Amino acid sequence: MGKPVLGHLDPEFISIMDETSAALREVFQTTNQLTFPVSGTGSAGAEAALVNMIDPGDRIVVGVAGVFGARLVEMARRAGGIVTEVTAPWGMPVPTEKVAEAVRRRGAKIVAIVHAETSTGMRQPVDEIRRAIGDDPILIVDAVTSLGGIEVDVDSWGIDVCFSGTQKCLSVPPGLAPITFSPRAEWKLETRATPVQSWYFDARLLRSYWEDVEHRRAYHHTAPISMVYGLHEGLRLVLQEGLDARWARHHDAGRFLRNALLERDFELIAADGYRLPQLTAVRLPKGSDDSLRGDLLREFDIEVGGGLGEFAGVAWRIGLMGLGARRQHALRLIQALDALM
Amino acid sequence: MGKPVLGHLDPEFISIMDETSAALREVFQTTNQLTFPVSGTGSAGAEAALVNMIDPGDRIVVGVAGVFGARLVEMARRAGGIVTEVTAPWGMPVPTEKVAEAVRRRGAKIVAIVHAETSTGMRQPVDEIRRAIGDDPILIVDAVTSLGGIEVDVDSWGIDVCFSGTQKCLSVPPGLAPITFSPRAEWKLETRATPVQSWYFDARLLRSYWEDVEHRRAYHHTAPISMVYGLHEGLRLVLQEGLDARWARHHDAGRFLRNALLERDFELIAADGYRLPQLTAVRLPKGSDDSLRGDLLREFDIEVGGGLGEFAGVAWRIGLMGLGARRQHALRLIQALDALM
Repeated sequence: MGKPVLGHLDPEFISIMDETSAALREVFQTTNQLTFPVSGTGSAGAEAALVNMIDPGDRIVVGVAGVFGARLVEMARRAGGIVTEVTAPWGMPVPTEKVAEAVRRRGAKIVAIVHAETSTGMRQPVDEIRRAIGDDPILIVDAVTSLGGIEVDVDSWGIDVCFSGTQKCLSVPPGLAPITFSPRAEWKLETRATPVQSWYFDARLLRSYWEDVEHRRAYHHTAPISMVYGLHEGLRLVLQEGLDARWARHHDAGRFLRNALLERDFELIAADGYRLPQLTAVRLPKGSDDSLRGDLLREFDIEVGGGLGEFAGVAWRIGLMGLGARRQHALRLIQALDALM
Repeated sequence: MGKPVLGHLDPEFISIMDETSAALREVFQTTNQLTFPVSGTGSAGAEAALVNMIDPGDRIVVGVAGVFGARLVEMARRAGGIVTEVTAPWGMPVPTEKVAEAVRRRGAKIVAIVHAETSTGMRQPVDEIRRAIGDDPILIVDAVTSLGGIEVDVDSWGIDVCFSGTQKCLSVPPGLAPITFSPRAEWKLETRATPVQSWYFDARLLRSYWEDVEHRRAYHHTAPISMVYGLHEGLRLVLQEGLDARWARHHDAGRFLRNALLERDFELIAADGYRLPQLTAVRLPKGSDDSLRGDLLREFDIEVGGGLGEFAGVAWRIGLMGLGARRQHALRLIQALDALM
């Protein structure tokens, strides 16, 4: 990211853009042509996905089992979508059959769901959703906290729009939101009834910058050049390690941490079988309180996320993501907890 | 920007945020509390300004004398604004009295105008606009290419929402859009009839992250940490130099370049008296063609912007911005042109 800033239409930078899109396709496991980083953080990816797919009045079913599902609802409403929420208790996945049932009942054209719910540490089995809803609805998946940490298989899972963030399992500083659109999603872009409400996130306009159209690139906005350098290098490291090896490393570190926390009377929030290795959400043992997080930061330079939403003050979210997904990092935390508690 | 990435709610990072907002207030010359960088590039600042100020059905007058004025029109329409365009030939400023007349005729609540039109090198006298339209309308000013290069005086010019980009005269890589909202603009936020159509750009939500509310910061989205570091340092350098000295340096470099280009039969696009020193747009001398830009890049490592919109292929846009606003940089270009032409 410290390299000299090239112009956003410099041929050398366009090569870096092309390599970044190609690497993103590998990491998303897709052949989708329209694949690029949105110039904003993960939430910008969510908004880009929704505003591009929703025409005002479109019916959309959104799975909600935490803060980030609720955020999709809020964004979908602001985009003019008629939202049906399918909920689950926090920590549980959204029941696949309830999603499918809501789609049928409401005649919904779009389904949006979170793959890795960062507020609870829950993994949603996304592949089951497509099988249950059939071929027609557009399926939008929030892979902010999953991409590069656990399997995300855009094409074989039948995802139409998948977005992520750079700062989770890709181990790149925050600032970009990788996104990919299937041919069906591109068809929706072409056949929308109304212009996308956001000019900045309009995927058709962004396409003319990220892809050759008549052998040239059109200026849309100035890309965050240094951030693209960072993502380019981060993706190189992901692919050098290999997706399978990377997922295995996340699983190993997550299991190690989970077991150590259980031994210390922490209570896991996500249901058995649906636990993310990269993000472990726990209730504190009886008698401990949230101020421990401050001690961890001050005395041990270890940052643990606080509870979000209904878990504020009573739960922690412990990330072992990207380069940090190693037993040695989990062990540092456990040793610090043993010293403090 | 290479410093370790702090958490977005780490107390150390919050200090950096506060210092960044304080420095932005100095550079914008404002006491506005709500002043922060939007997590996107300059166009994200434009969209944030418009979607926060426009309720669907609001009448808005937009000045258009180039690509970036036209962009404001497009964004305002997508936000549901009823737009009246006041145009001027490219290179000329939008006539102040026509703007005021359109506001009166249409009963417009909002005026949006570009201070430094990057497609033509024209400076719009923004201070005259407020005097002509009176106190009531909300005045939105695009200062992407002016902030840090020429005078921008948010408070004494009566601007309500002013936005910029990092990569122009602030000499920071692209990726953030500084923005400031006056108390009147904040009042509009509080009294809107509808939610802001964009969740990502919703200034009321962003305020709870960038300002203390009941002594704490609320999580909205993960800020692009490394970019904020870059802006923090860039603003320190701007203020160390001093705004007056910085503007004088831009004026000196711009005048030097203009004169040298005139001697070589380039034709200035912006009208006399309205020329930006930081961005000189020129028509090529007869017999020269746009392919020279490629030669400059390949042989001399000098990047010159191509013409935008109606100037594509026939004009150049030469930036002398921020750290680059020095005679020595202008001279390198002139010497290269003398060698090539």
